[in-house]
Amino acid sequence: MELIQTHQNSDTICPIARTAEIISGKWTLLIIRDLASGVKRFNQLERSLQGISPKTLSERLRSLEVDGVIVRQTFAEVPPRVEYSLTEKGHDLVCVIESMRSFGNRWLCNK
Amino acid sequence: MELIQTHQNSDTICPIARTAEIISGKWTLLIIRDLASGVKRFNQLERSLQGISPKTLSERLRSLEVDGVIVRQTFAEVPPRVEYSLTEKGHDLVCVIESMRSFGNRWLCNK
Repeated sequence: MELIQTHQNSDTICPIARTAEIISGKWTLLIIRDLASGVKRFNQLERSLQGISPKTLSERLRSLEVDGVIVRQTFAEVPPRVEYSLTEKGHDLVCVIESMRSFGNRWLCNK
Repeated sequence: MELIQTHQNSDTICPIARTAEIISGKWTLLIIRDLASGVKRFNQLERSLQGISPKTLSERLRSLEVDGVIVRQTFAEVPPRVEYSLTEKGHDLVCVIESMRSFGNRWLCNK
């Protein structure tokens, strides 16, 4: 069974390689995981992603925004409120993360 | 709908985080992609993964072997033949890669 599409020696056209470019890196995946359950503020993400620096979190969020995976909304309050949520494209990435969860539950837990 | 399991502020027990530890990084994903279609020799992987250095390929293969995702078989020929293939655990990761392909085909191709 040919499950994996041939990439024709060009990672620029392989959909797996292109998706990997977006979600490569642990933090990026975990940000999408956290946003899958709903809108989050910067501070909420920072608390959830133990060990991430504010600089790294800002960079990853900005990168996901540029990729069209998340949207950033600012509210003119005092102090200003900034919220992040998944776009339709971002919600589609939840399937990838769910398949990772199934794998992890099967092979990596309680070992 | 609560698709994503709460990770209880501990990435050591979250199956997504633990799976991310294994497949983080573009090359690792692409090696699994290439092995999904069958057994490969080192040289075949090197040709397929354009831009990877032999050192990096060796390191990634060794890491996947330690994680139980691939097996390495050596044959006492001249020159010695070394082949890599997915384990049962490795084949289960193909679902993750397939979901990445679906996403890539939907959102990242022809754009």
